Amino acid sequence: MPVIFFEGPKLPLEKKAEMIKGFTEVANGVLPRIPKEAFVVILKENHIDNVGVGGELLSVMKKRHREEAG
Amino acid sequence: MPVIFFEGPKLPLEKKAEMIKGFTEVANGVLPRIPKEAFVVILKENHIDNVGVGGELLSVMKKRHREEAG
Amino acid sequence: MPVIFFEGPKLPLEKKAEMIKGFTEVANGVLPRIPKEAFVVILKENHIDNVGVGGELLSVMKKRHREEAG
Amino acid sequence: MPVIFFEGPKLPLEKKAEMIKGFTEVANGVLPRIPKEAFVVILKENHIDNVGVGGELLSVMKKRHREEAG
Amino acid sequence: MPVIFFEGPKLPLEKKAEMIKGFTEVANGVLPRIPKEAFVVILKENHIDNVGVGGELLSVMKKRHREEAG
Amino acid sequence: MPVIFFEGPKLPLEKKAEMIKGFTEVANGVLPRIPKEAFVVILKENHIDNVGVGGELLSVMKKRHREEAG
Repeated sequence: MPVIFFEGPKLPLEKKAEMIKGFTEVANGVLPRIPKEAFVVILKENHIDNVGVGGELLSVMKKRHREEAG
Repeated sequence: MPVIFFEGPKLPLEKKAEMIKGFTEVANGVLPRIPKEAFVVILKENHIDNVGVGGELLSVMKKRHREEAG
Repeated sequence: MPVIFFEGPKLPLEKKAEMIKGFTEVANGVLPRIPKEAFVVILKENHIDNVGVGGELLSVMKKRHREEAG
Repeated sequence: MPVIFFEGPKLPLEKKAEMIKGFTEVANGVLPRIPKEAFVVILKENHIDNVGVGGELLSVMKKRHREEAG
Repeated sequence: MPVIFFEGPKLPLEKKAEMIKGFTEVANGVLPRIPKEAFVVILKENHIDNVGVGGELLSVMKKRHREEAG
Repeated sequence: MPVIFFEGPKLPLEKKAEMIKGFTEVANGVLPRIPKEAFVVILKENHIDNVGVGGELLSVMKKRHREEAG
């Protein structure tokens, strides 16, 4: 019944599996009386054009950082 | 003004229409003083690689079930 | 595994039960191959000071409507 | 640390940047003691087949309006 | 129909009004063809015991900062 | 910048700290290039009258289970 949402970047399949396994173990460790099968994880992959940090597009920020690192 | 989110699998268009109509009728039936036009439904279709149940990827679980069913 | 969120007003207990039963029946009707026990509904009750419509607080809008209605 | 989610239509890149900049300025204006870099905005672009208003698919409603407008 | 969620700290009423007005003006400025009345804002006030940054409770982090500022 | 939401039951403070620490370590382990301080966790505690499983209120289900257990 508990549901965990992860809002983050796009992930390859093996990292998705790792994230889901890890979150479920953490949550089930904290709440051991809820059966493991009841934990649901939903991964939300956001494109860097759809995320802003400090008012700036993440895609623009990353480009800027790359250029500064030159 | 009330907003209903559905986190589930990918759906064909006619099932989307059915889901939206049904949710709105239920919610408006419970809250008849709110005009029907004020109810918003947003369907969130999640890929089975982005959902985990019991710590396992839904895509892996489905594959396993198919193999067990042989 | 599907999860339905309802963002709306505060509700008495019998209306919560009605909403949860109705949403589950609709969703399970559209997706009959998913067992009924797998559907989760989470009701989010929002105070009218925390909701805005058209840029105005819902609590202010309701007060205004009551005054206009005399 | 505050997070703003926008559930709306698909947007071109320059409108995404404008939305993210504007939301962050508003939120940081209201909460000036939280540093600007701590504000996160996530834009959720929903297809008009996944949104319902008044129990009707937004895509169907738009089509109907266009036909009525002739 | 667009919905804006703000996940942040508890706010006094006048700051809620300011936040809702500001978000709506920004979103309606970016999407002028959607009528202003269609924009919904929902403020989610989170207790500092329910938010973590960098793996640490916000309430613990704030206490630590106060002590360090001592 | 990644944000993790946990929708679950009410938790005592030490379990909140444990949940937040654990989720952040898992997510940062999967995404080691994102600095730890950028991970945000928001715990959403839901009353058992606001959650439904299989169309039934969680509070009703728990009461029934207790009665069946005698």
